[in-house]
This record gives sequence, structure tokens and C-alpha cells, in this order.
Amino acid sequence: MDVLIANNEPKAKTFLKEIKGKKPLFICTIATTETGKIPGLSAAGANPDFTDFTPPADAELLLLGKCKSIQGVPITPDGIPTPALVTTSALHLAEIPVLIVNGGVKVRPQVPYIELGGNSGRDIRTGDSVDNVEEVIERAKILGEQLAKVTDYLVIGESIPGGTTTALGVLSALGVNAEGKVSSTLPENPHGLKVDVVKAGLKTAGEKFGSLSNNPIKAVSCVGDPMMPALAGLVIGASKKSPVLMAGGTQMTAVLAVINALDSEALRNVAVGTTRWVAKDKSSDICGIINQFCDVPVLAADLDFSSSMYSGLRVYETGLVKEGVGAGGASLAAMSKLGDSVTKQTLLKEIENNYALLMTQK
Amino acid sequence: MDVLIANNEPKAKTFLKEIKGKKPLFICTIATTETGKIPGLSAAGANPDFTDFTPPADAELLLLGKCKSIQGVPITPDGIPTPALVTTSALHLAEIPVLIVNGGVKVRPQVPYIELGGNSGRDIRTGDSVDNVEEVIERAKILGEQLAKVTDYLVIGESIPGGTTTALGVLSALGVNAEGKVSSTLPENPHGLKVDVVKAGLKTAGEKFGSLSNNPIKAVSCVGDPMMPALAGLVIGASKKSPVLMAGGTQMTAVLAVINALDSEALRNVAVGTTRWVAKDKSSDICGIINQFCDVPVLAADLDFSSSMYSGLRVYETGLVKEGVGAGGASLAAMSKLGDSVTKQTLLKEIENNYALLMTQK
Repeated sequence: MDVLIANNEPKAKTFLKEIKGKKPLFICTIATTETGKIPGLSAAGANPDFTDFTPPADAELLLLGKCKSIQGVPITPDGIPTPALVTTSALHLAEIPVLIVNGGVKVRPQVPYIELGGNSGRDIRTGDSVDNVEEVIERAKILGEQLAKVTDYLVIGESIPGGTTTALGVLSALGVNAEGKVSSTLPENPHGLKVDVVKAGLKTAGEKFGSLSNNPIKAVSCVGDPMMPALAGLVIGASKKSPVLMAGGTQMTAVLAVINALDSEALRNVAVGTTRWVAKDKSSDICGIINQFCDVPVLAADLDFSSSMYSGLRVYETGLVKEGVGAGGASLAAMSKLGDSVTKQTLLKEIENNYALLMTQK
Repeated sequence: MDVLIANNEPKAKTFLKEIKGKKPLFICTIATTETGKIPGLSAAGANPDFTDFTPPADAELLLLGKCKSIQGVPITPDGIPTPALVTTSALHLAEIPVLIVNGGVKVRPQVPYIELGGNSGRDIRTGDSVDNVEEVIERAKILGEQLAKVTDYLVIGESIPGGTTTALGVLSALGVNAEGKVSSTLPENPHGLKVDVVKAGLKTAGEKFGSLSNNPIKAVSCVGDPMMPALAGLVIGASKKSPVLMAGGTQMTAVLAVINALDSEALRNVAVGTTRWVAKDKSSDICGIINQFCDVPVLAADLDFSSSMYSGLRVYETGLVKEGVGAGGASLAAMSKLGDSVTKQTLLKEIENNYALLMTQK
């Protein structure tokens, strides 16, 4: 199987064995924030205001195979297509069902989605970025419990522009050192800007590094984003009954830290599934964050677009985008479900087909 | 198994065989309308304005085991508790997972629910009762397709006050003779009032009996309710992949008629699951409606509350309430899943326990 183990090899192997041949349900948790619109922070949209449309458009792509809220598909300012293209290809290959969970978006997707009562997030520099954190966690737990009963295991991804900055915010509030360690969709990871934004948010909130280590709800409320309570609650609710693959890059480490502070037992049956581009990224350090507070294994889909006939896909090999919309986790789940019939080559073929289809539709 | 066959015995037996021992997912489709507030029409709430709270409270009861939007549980003007009490007991006994789908409610439930873009319904006497019918059907189809992939089969119930009147409306618009045949929660079925309301709605809409037989979307838009497009779409989307048990009384016949007009093939793998109180009701005729346009089998859970220690439950035997929130279908599903360990006696015991718990909580 084209999978790399990036953290905790024994637990990673046990997890892989447990999900082998099993049928998962994929959940994409969507949210938007004003933080994501700070210039220079995120590439998850052709321009900052466009980031409001990226998560609903990703959701539509997963369920319909095309977007409704926007023409074409979400792209970076450089024209690189959304990683949802990878996700939708993997899920389609392995016939994995999809549900959308709304953590809090400004623009509602034009497809079915599960509502948890969350709102879109404010700029974390206000020190008051997310509403209803506790209630959304409680509702997400209930949902996670129900969904764990209908599937062998859950794969939970995210689509939220600017999510690594809010991840840095929450990790810092919880006392986890993540400066220079969170990933980026941009060619040059704007670590300095992220640190400045987070410091401003903590200052306005009257908090500092580690001051909220015993209050994860407040940490998310002050400097987090609305994806976090939804995803954390889902994992806590589901993981008592079934394995959970948290599908994403360094954003997932903030969710792990929140879960760890709320109910560390809930992490026993959890792994992070990401892409090789995140696992091998020199400008971020997913394992260096995780190992400060837990031993959750990290798996990476060994995707390789270097031989693609499309430059828009080959560019992923230069470190752009890297991950998102659960691309890595969905690829892992497809390979685990179908075994050797799904490889990085068959995946690339399917992704190229969808790329051709979607990029000409514009 | 404590099941009665009320319609199409051969198909009913095949359906029962197909779901035997299988693990279903229960969906409750909620909606509210101004039609449900017409005095004398519905008993699904202590008074007409209360009907806005009945569906969200039912949804909360199913997921939490208690209500949040109201104190206690929904009751009729006579104090009889919601049939969701039966549903939640059956689902709990058999560990059947639950999801809530919002067809269109005024008051949102304080639990997770799936949004399809529908709105609460207007009074059908306006001749323009439901918004976005076509779009909600399309979204519900997509949802049904996904959910059918994660479960052996679907059981889909409803909670919508006044639903038999809108059922009569849509059946009439589609040319199905249902006058005097729809059921009621009330001790005396107000057939005359229902007919008057439907006639007024059809007149305002410029339609008459059967004039919309080729336009089910318009029939629902004019004189239907928002539960219908959600439930019809779910069945159409799911039934190509898995069996579907439509859990309800005569309201389901209107949904069947809509599906039949949209895509009659979708009814091949469908049964109606109701209660003995509906199947044996002398003031309504579920099979007499269905057999005018299709051969869908009707199964009835042989519930019997005559020996209950609680008068609030014994009164079900006098013909009050009869059905709702998928009570009959959920009971059938629990019996089918666990076989002889779930009988009308074990069900009554569980229902009595929950009744005692909930009625003293008030």
C-alpha cells in the first residue's frame, strides 16, 4: 500500500490493520472565518473574499462532482485547483459515502449538510473568534455517536481557509509550541505573519502562551475557528465506538490538543491521515507538534503527481497546497478499503480524469 | 414476530425476509406548517401554536432521550404523550442509530440535523404552501444516495402536525380519492374540516381534483407540506441501493403518490410500516388509498397497550394519536433486527419505563 508512517510506527501499524478492508464514512467539516481573509495568510481561494465560497464549493464538489456556489472549482491565487479534487477522486474510486458537517460558514452549500448551531468565525485578533463552542461540541458528540453506529470507521476532513493560523492560535493558548511548525497552502509559509496575528489575538483576549491549557473551550472561543469544536466533538463522540482517521495536516494537531484537554481517552482509537507533502514538508513539523502532548500515529498517503500530464497537478510536488478537504485521509481510506487495486498511479489517473473534466467546464 | 400484514401479502413477506436481522438507520423528517394550526385539525401539540415546537421536541427526544425546546414531552390537548416515546423506546432497545432531516421547521431543534434548504409551510388555503420543492427533492435524493451506502436499509419517519390534511391535499391534486380515508390524531377524525380546507386550497391555486396528476412538484407546492419533498427525495435516492421502510400512517400515502408520479420505479424496494392502530382504524383507510395507484406492501407493528399500567398509554387503544414519528416502523425495525427477543410485551415494558421517566421529569 502506498502509505508512509510518519509518527508512532507500532500504533500506526495497528491502526492500519484495524481499518484494512473496512468500509468508512467520510465527513467533511466546513467553516469560514475573517481570519482567513487577512492578506497573505491563506491561498484557499483566488482572493481573500473568495475564501467564503471555498468550503461550500468543496462540499458541492464532494457530493455532486461539480460546484454550484462558484463557477469551476476553488483555486489558489496561482490557479492551482482545490485538494477536494484528490478527495473526490479517492472517494469515488472506492465508493466511500460522504456527509458534510457545517462547523460555521457564511455561505451555505447548495447540497445537504448537517447543522450543529455554529456560526462563521471572527478575526482572531479580536480575541473573541468563535461562538457557541461548548454547545457545538456537545451536538457534534451526539452526531459522532450516531454515525459511529452506521459505519466501520470515520474519516473526518476539513475545509477552512486560514486554518493553520487558528491552529497556531489554539495550540499556543494550550501551551503547545507550534511556532514555525504549522503548514501552509502558500509557496512561502508566512510563519512570521501567523505568529503576529496569534500574538495580537492572545493579547486582546488577555491571554498568553499556555494560559488556557486547562480551558480548551475558551482557547477555541478566543483564538480558534468553528471547524474545531465540530471536529473535536465528532471525534470524541465516535471514537468510543469506532476508529477515527482525522484527515488533514497541521490543523488537526490543534483539534488533537483540544480533544486531549477535554477527554484524552478519546484519542486511543484515533490516527491522523495526511499527505506525503505535509509529512515531508520542511517548512512545518506535524509530528513535532503532536509529540509534545500525545502519541497519536500519523499516516501519510504517498501521493506522487510528478509524472502528471497536467502542470496544475505537478505543481503539488513543489509544496503548494499540500493538503486539505481530507485529501490524504481519503486517499488512505480508499487504499485501505480496496487494497492493491488502488495505488498512487490509479489515484493519479482518476484525479487527472476529474481535473480534465472540471477545468474544461469553467 | 408481532407484525400484521395489511396490504400485498406476497410483497410484504419478501420485504420482511429482506430486512430480517439487518441493521437499519432511522431518519426522522421534521416540518411544520400554518395548516397544522387551523383549530380542530391536529392534536400534535397542547394547542395550535404549540405545534411549532412538537417536531423539534420530538427530534430532541429521539437523540437525547429528553426534550430541550420544551419542558416534558409533546402532548395532545388531552395530555396524551407523543408517539416519539414509542419510537425512542424501540430504537433504544435495538440500538438503531438516528438522524434528523429538516424538511422545513419554524423552530430549529437543539440537536444535530440535516439541512436541505426547505422552509416551514404556509396554510394550504393560500394555494401556495411550500417553497423550493424541486430543489429540496434534488438535495434529498443526494442525501438518500449517500445514506443508503452506509446502512443495510433505511426507516424514514416524520413529525409534522396537521400532516394528514396536507396529505389529503396532495392526494386530491394528484387525482387519488382520499376523502374520508386519511387518519387523525384526534378522537373524532375531522374529515369534513379537512375536505373544506383542501377544497379552499385547490380553489385558490386554480386547481381541482386530479388537475396536477402529472405535476407532483406543483401539487406539493400548492397544497402540500415541507416534509413531503424531503421524504420523497430520500426514498428516491436511497431505494435504488437499499430497501426503504416508510414509517408512518396515511401521510405516507401522499409521499408514495408523489414518488409514483416522479419515478415509479423507485417504489419497487419500498414498504410502508405503520401501527396496528392505523391499519385497523375504521375512520381511515390507508390501503384503500395506496391501492388506487401502486402495490406497495403495508406492514403494521402489532403494538398493544391495553394491559399498560399507565392510562396515558392505554388510551392509545381507544384510537387517539395512533402513529407518528415513525412509531410503527421503528417498532418493526427493532423486531426485525433482534428477532424474538423484541415483542409487543418487551416493547411495552421499555415504553412504560421511558414514560415513567419522562412524565415525572416535567
